[in-house]
Amino acid sequence: MTANGWRAVLRERLGERVSVLPGDLQAHARDEGTPYTCIPGAVVFAQSEADVLATLAVARDHRVPVTPWGAGTSLEGAALPLPGAISLDLSGLDTVGEVDPLGFTVTVGPGVRRVALNRRLRSHGLFFPVDPGADASLGGMAATHASGTTTVRYGGMRENVLSLRVALLDGRVLSLGSAARKSSSGYALKHLFLGSEGTLGVITALTLRLHPLPPATASVQLAFPDVASAVLASVTARGLGVTPERLEFVDAATVRAVNRHRDRHDPEAPTLWAEVAGRDAADVDTQLALLREAAALHGGVTVGEARTPEAQGALWAARHGVYDALRAAWPGHATRIGDVCVPLPALASTVALAQRLLAKHGLTAPLVGHIGDGNLHLLMHAPPDDTETWARIERVLHELATQAIAAGGTCTGEHGVGLRKRPYLRAEHGAALDVMRDVKALFDPLNLLNPGKVVGDPLSLPDWSQDVPTRT
Amino acid sequence: MTANGWRAVLRERLGERVSVLPGDLQAHARDEGTPYTCIPGAVVFAQSEADVLATLAVARDHRVPVTPWGAGTSLEGAALPLPGAISLDLSGLDTVGEVDPLGFTVTVGPGVRRVALNRRLRSHGLFFPVDPGADASLGGMAATHASGTTTVRYGGMRENVLSLRVALLDGRVLSLGSAARKSSSGYALKHLFLGSEGTLGVITALTLRLHPLPPATASVQLAFPDVASAVLASVTARGLGVTPERLEFVDAATVRAVNRHRDRHDPEAPTLWAEVAGRDAADVDTQLALLREAAALHGGVTVGEARTPEAQGALWAARHGVYDALRAAWPGHATRIGDVCVPLPALASTVALAQRLLAKHGLTAPLVGHIGDGNLHLLMHAPPDDTETWARIERVLHELATQAIAAGGTCTGEHGVGLRKRPYLRAEHGAALDVMRDVKALFDPLNLLNPGKVVGDPLSLPDWSQDVPTRT
Repeated sequence: MTANGWRAVLRERLGERVSVLPGDLQAHARDEGTPYTCIPGAVVFAQSEADVLATLAVARDHRVPVTPWGAGTSLEGAALPLPGAISLDLSGLDTVGEVDPLGFTVTVGPGVRRVALNRRLRSHGLFFPVDPGADASLGGMAATHASGTTTVRYGGMRENVLSLRVALLDGRVLSLGSAARKSSSGYALKHLFLGSEGTLGVITALTLRLHPLPPATASVQLAFPDVASAVLASVTARGLGVTPERLEFVDAATVRAVNRHRDRHDPEAPTLWAEVAGRDAADVDTQLALLREAAALHGGVTVGEARTPEAQGALWAARHGVYDALRAAWPGHATRIGDVCVPLPALASTVALAQRLLAKHGLTAPLVGHIGDGNLHLLMHAPPDDTETWARIERVLHELATQAIAAGGTCTGEHGVGLRKRPYLRAEHGAALDVMRDVKALFDPLNLLNPGKVVGDPLSLPDWSQDVPTRT
Repeated sequence: MTANGWRAVLRERLGERVSVLPGDLQAHARDEGTPYTCIPGAVVFAQSEADVLATLAVARDHRVPVTPWGAGTSLEGAALPLPGAISLDLSGLDTVGEVDPLGFTVTVGPGVRRVALNRRLRSHGLFFPVDPGADASLGGMAATHASGTTTVRYGGMRENVLSLRVALLDGRVLSLGSAARKSSSGYALKHLFLGSEGTLGVITALTLRLHPLPPATASVQLAFPDVASAVLASVTARGLGVTPERLEFVDAATVRAVNRHRDRHDPEAPTLWAEVAGRDAADVDTQLALLREAAALHGGVTVGEARTPEAQGALWAARHGVYDALRAAWPGHATRIGDVCVPLPALASTVALAQRLLAKHGLTAPLVGHIGDGNLHLLMHAPPDDTETWARIERVLHELATQAIAAGGTCTGEHGVGLRKRPYLRAEHGAALDVMRDVKALFDPLNLLNPGKVVGDPLSLPDWSQDVPTRT
């Protein structure tokens, strides 16, 4: 059957929800972080689980690869369709169920976005804590196992997705996990799907674990003589009984860049921001005092404190201003964010390594980190067509990922594997990569579900003719 | 090859670490909760991962089923060997690695026991929080996905096992997960093994996430007019910013039984015990005040409070005395503990159902619950040979498990599946059970790893001739 053939069948079964308009195809051809353009052959704007199943049936019957699409905020290419194949847009599965005020849960469609969900939850005094920065879809966050700034306190998607509905390529729909808070019943298939990036099945609904909005919050900004001291201060604070909501780090060069951009005069030193939450003002005051004490023990000084929402916004502006400062300092540059995570004892040396690599390759890049988790980002940037600089950038990110794995960490803390972290999976997982590939073959024997991603051959970009077996 | 044949080969390769002494065989024939005696054909006392691999090789070459054994504290039969086959005792893999004081981690052998580990961690100011009650082995706790009283605050094994080493039947050893706190790298195979009860591979090492010992703790005992009020009070407390370390419930009949046994005069009402932890005495006092306030809002009254370790021990004695009271009231009785978990909104009705079922079948049984998690235990008891009473007990537990699943919960909150929860997996997981069986076949195509458990045919007790295919 020709390409038009499967499109005609899709159209027959899904009507106007199938688009081949150039604008729609283009809108699903790029993500926010990967310099590839992969124009799908059709976009299905699914409105229901039945639409997802109908799309998978056509994909199966006509051997057409299908890649789920949430909000397109992916950074490593997870959501890029195979050229000419199906982009399955789930943004129309945007139902938000009743909030359960006793169990602190809600069931949502995979297309629901984080910011809108939290706006809705506010009136219930609850929130969904996982915050990757981008206004991502919940389905995409689950599929890439996103986490973010609040992981130190609340965990990532793994800890906050209670159950999933998943459509398999063979037409079965699985309910995985439950709204019960505990279970030791059977194999944890739910966890296989968290981080599987649409390669095993398509998430059609998620039940989320919510948390009470804290009665009071406050923030502090602390400057340190070096990175190791900042890490030690965060460990001391934990020992004193303080677990911040967020615990963020930037290096001295980045503070310098933000100072210049914002006309600020913050000490140009390794800097921590901590947000603490508590029962009342006294509770958060005590926690701030303990954080100051922990910092002082390791040579840290307080740059500022804030208790009102407005003052906290201003205090965090320097941390949140990193991206703006980058854009202002280097207008027109494209960015690529390095994302590694290492065990805490290796964090200071990994930051030092990143700084040495930048210097060695003649590059500058803001360095920010979720320091409580050992998760480090390098915000690389260059003019989009400056291939020579991009080659040096790739070199730095390659050495950083390699060293993170050697230090017992991971090549991707929270951005997923997509296309560009595939070359590191063998070093990181060893023989387990073969088992992952067996699992992929078990769920997707025809290799039609987002083929080539995550466990695919790292040496080639997936393409329909090449990656999808023609066997019937 | 005859049975003596594979034993001779085992003996050849593992020497004195293989035992066929009747005492050793008997010591591995029973667990703590299941009324079956399954005498193995040999016990391997493994001292190293190499011993595990050697055992698996013999099992593979001679088609002998092998069942890992930790401390034998299993309640549902997970650790029972197949009659005549191999019990692989891992208690000799008891190494405790260096404690990482920055990352709060430690790597241990699967045979290390919980109480000994925490004794060792104390001098570091750290502890491993998962507390199933029994002094279980860490490998067994991971394999059954144990949790317990502290799950409400720290999560269960899933949240506190950072990485696993796993020996597969084919001789490969996988390293799953890492000491990094975040990763979105590949499929979460580690989570498949948590709760797999030795049916997919054998855990040979675990890296655990540790937590700082809280600087201060205190406890409160609260009595409520009914179960629903106790649940609501726990939810209100969460909203006020209090997350207890433990939050335990017993019903009125149980308080009455303990009063009688211990000559206490506690109010014979649905009762909560909460332990809170904080930075200092003032912090825990505030939390106790908020718990009292939350209780009062729902008709609860304070029975007692305690701040010193001794006073807390006395306060909790009534909760911890449940088992003793049971044994004293019904000497010589055998016990069977029902273990279901439901979403919090269904907890009060599930407790009521349990009480109705007991009354209907003319039984009494202490009812205790990890109320913050919706996890409920019924401590059923009868003389071991009173088959008529045991039939009624099975009826109650069957209806309770069935109703827990119907309420969106699970047939086993924390005791695993083993042999006796197998009949409920279809109702709980639907088509996902078939996928679990496919996963089992992927890891264990010869069905030699603890065959019949978890996803095995619920209608038969596994036995070597019947469950293990003879194909080569």
